[in-house]
Amino acid sequence: MKEFDTIAAVATPVGEGGISIIRVSGQKSLEIVDRVFKGVKERRLIDIKSYTMRYGFIIDNDELIDEVIVSYMKGPKSFTAEDVVEINCHGGIISTNRVLDVIVKAGARLAEPGEFTKRAFINGRIDLSQAEAVIDIIRAKTDLSMKSALVQSQGKLSREINRLREYLLNVLALIEYDVDFTEDDEEPDETVSLRVNDSLLKTVKDIDSLLENAEEGKLIRDGLKLVIIGKPNVGKSSLLNALLQEKRAIVTDIPGTTRDVIEEYINLDGIPLKIIDTAGIRETEDIVEKIGVEKSREKIEEADLVVLMLDVSIPLDDEDLEIINYVKDKKYIVLFNKVDLDSNISGEVLNELENKINISAKTGLGLENLKDKIKELFFNGKLDGESVIVSNTRHKEALYRARENCLSAIESIKNGDFIDLVSIYVTSGLKALGEITGSELEEDLVNKIFTEFCVGK
Amino acid sequence: MKEFDTIAAVATPVGEGGISIIRVSGQKSLEIVDRVFKGVKERRLIDIKSYTMRYGFIIDNDELIDEVIVSYMKGPKSFTAEDVVEINCHGGIISTNRVLDVIVKAGARLAEPGEFTKRAFINGRIDLSQAEAVIDIIRAKTDLSMKSALVQSQGKLSREINRLREYLLNVLALIEYDVDFTEDDEEPDETVSLRVNDSLLKTVKDIDSLLENAEEGKLIRDGLKLVIIGKPNVGKSSLLNALLQEKRAIVTDIPGTTRDVIEEYINLDGIPLKIIDTAGIRETEDIVEKIGVEKSREKIEEADLVVLMLDVSIPLDDEDLEIINYVKDKKYIVLFNKVDLDSNISGEVLNELENKINISAKTGLGLENLKDKIKELFFNGKLDGESVIVSNTRHKEALYRARENCLSAIESIKNGDFIDLVSIYVTSGLKALGEITGSELEEDLVNKIFTEFCVGK
Repeated sequence: MKEFDTIAAVATPVGEGGISIIRVSGQKSLEIVDRVFKGVKERRLIDIKSYTMRYGFIIDNDELIDEVIVSYMKGPKSFTAEDVVEINCHGGIISTNRVLDVIVKAGARLAEPGEFTKRAFINGRIDLSQAEAVIDIIRAKTDLSMKSALVQSQGKLSREINRLREYLLNVLALIEYDVDFTEDDEEPDETVSLRVNDSLLKTVKDIDSLLENAEEGKLIRDGLKLVIIGKPNVGKSSLLNALLQEKRAIVTDIPGTTRDVIEEYINLDGIPLKIIDTAGIRETEDIVEKIGVEKSREKIEEADLVVLMLDVSIPLDDEDLEIINYVKDKKYIVLFNKVDLDSNISGEVLNELENKINISAKTGLGLENLKDKIKELFFNGKLDGESVIVSNTRHKEALYRARENCLSAIESIKNGDFIDLVSIYVTSGLKALGEITGSELEEDLVNKIFTEFCVGK
Repeated sequence: MKEFDTIAAVATPVGEGGISIIRVSGQKSLEIVDRVFKGVKERRLIDIKSYTMRYGFIIDNDELIDEVIVSYMKGPKSFTAEDVVEINCHGGIISTNRVLDVIVKAGARLAEPGEFTKRAFINGRIDLSQAEAVIDIIRAKTDLSMKSALVQSQGKLSREINRLREYLLNVLALIEYDVDFTEDDEEPDETVSLRVNDSLLKTVKDIDSLLENAEEGKLIRDGLKLVIIGKPNVGKSSLLNALLQEKRAIVTDIPGTTRDVIEEYINLDGIPLKIIDTAGIRETEDIVEKIGVEKSREKIEEADLVVLMLDVSIPLDDEDLEIINYVKDKKYIVLFNKVDLDSNISGEVLNELENKINISAKTGLGLENLKDKIKELFFNGKLDGESVIVSNTRHKEALYRARENCLSAIESIKNGDFIDLVSIYVTSGLKALGEITGSELEEDLVNKIFTEFCVGK
């Protein structure tokens, strides 16, 4: 195990609560915390046993900083596989930061985002896909996304990847064996080609089955980005509120009230639906509103699904037609809102639209149809959360590259290329798979992944 | 110790972080957690020693819920003085709630806000003023407020109160002694009156010294509520941003942009300054803005300090004069903003105003003068945080009542009233002091105090 300096950070969410935890990891963690800890009857920490706790105070010289419980997990049986000390202090923002300050003054360095998990990876306790799963667990928006991440954190995806890597390593061994023979000017062994071909086909088949749910996996992990568009006063905020079942956006009768883009999650049978409410789309001289409209257009571009709202009580106008244009190249649902009022809407263009649903955002009528339609558009298969789901785009892309290389290798065999040319493709495939578990990923790319973590993890 | 059911709640702040803690307290806490815990090699929790930890999983039947570390603190050496089990799980919102759900399903009840601390109080580990200090520590906005609360949580205020109670108990004993004698038809003992009088005077003097810093104490604990007023576009949001040194409010050139009241804290040398930005005060037909104006007027009423902003670049108008009217009965500071522009402001009314400061909210000019003025207006004395500061309004009021009763008793003695009439006042004084530590407070009032706590504390 490598030796690093000792790092510290607040490991609990930021805010007000009963307890916060300051995590300290590294060879000197116990020594550092001992310098600022005052136990009952002046008891020191130095003799504390692993997996036990002590009650006492954090002090700064003689000043009392907070009342704490300190726990100790000796490496390698800890989160980072290093010596870890955790300080449970009062859960206020000031108390937590004061304790952290004292620990830093006593010799620890402030941890960078993801640095604890990174150490668990570098120290070999977990691989990269497991490390990424840790952050997915924390960010999970639904039970299903949590479960999928937990399965990954327990190494289930890693085992699949390692099995695929073994296939390809066998292929390389076969090729090596064959190359050795052909050096003796013998004829190339036909059966080697066949066996290599079979192994490659089997690898492609297994990659395909991993990729099968990848699209759904991504939505489960990151959420399905749904953007609600429509001109001012059509009822966008009311729809959002109806979906959220609580008042978050300011809803009034004044066109253009929603100034900022509002993002909220709802849980659609385990699928996190990231709903983006937008300012009304219209050209305007109002500076504040203009910011909103520009943001809206950007959001539509990133959306997985666009929900277009039309008001049935008033005829279509140029603005509506312009808005209808926005949805053309997107997956969309058209909501005819205010069906409780008299219908005054008509036009040829309406016949060309798909996925039309009548609703009343005010009364909640039609909301279930909307939810069913969303599930139909995105989730045809069933997802149980027990099986391995490739949910991370990085993993998906690496699997695609591995697959491409296997196919190129198969093609190469078919063309009768030199078999050591085939091995170049297979090696590339192996490398792609190794990127998922981190065994073959360059250091700066690994670092990049960990910087996306939160501080304290 | 009384016996209660077993309660559970998330003890860490709500949000995303590395770790969350589910706290379980009560006689069955270990039994309940054991039902859903799966340790390494199927190890049970039942034999866990106090102040030790175990690694494992929380399971729901056979379903894996989360990877956890469980710690155990056997009562009475725990926060609640009951058996406490703490489960450290992944710090996501979903993971935390999933674990809590499983614990509740296994037999625990969801804890009410403040219920853990309430149990610590009912079980006699801490008194009421110490319990209140726990929540003050968590909510502290500055080092000074944190330190003051920590001193109180360690029982320093309680010791002062108990000393005062002893004085008054001695007074009652003297009176009782005297009443016994007078029953034998002897003359009342003059020396008893004198000694009672002396003790009461000493009590009043000590209460006065406790109350000396109470006003400042309240501001340290609750923050000094500062409201910024002025007509639209005078620079209120710019001032707020300059004070916060980060962009939180939307600042634009359109009058009436600040739609909602915004509340922020800044740390003024240990004093939490609660800054309330308001929508521009003006009569308006705009519904959204009207909500803001109404809120503003309410906020001005509650403010400890009103900061009135005027724009020096334009002459005073009726609106300004109306706004100047608002500050009349308040502690106020007048800021002449935009001093970098040509001055066009004048008027007799300006001469009548006090505490005038020139600033440029845009460039930050004059901000230090503003801060100094605030300190001058509210904090003449020095506050070190080491001494006992009465910061809680409830305690202050109880001290005032105790003081009043002592004075009435002294008055009664002076008037030559029957000395057992004096004892009625002294008993009331004793009761008022007992309310602070909770020894003489009715159950429903105690309950009311704890409901103001957050869940998980």
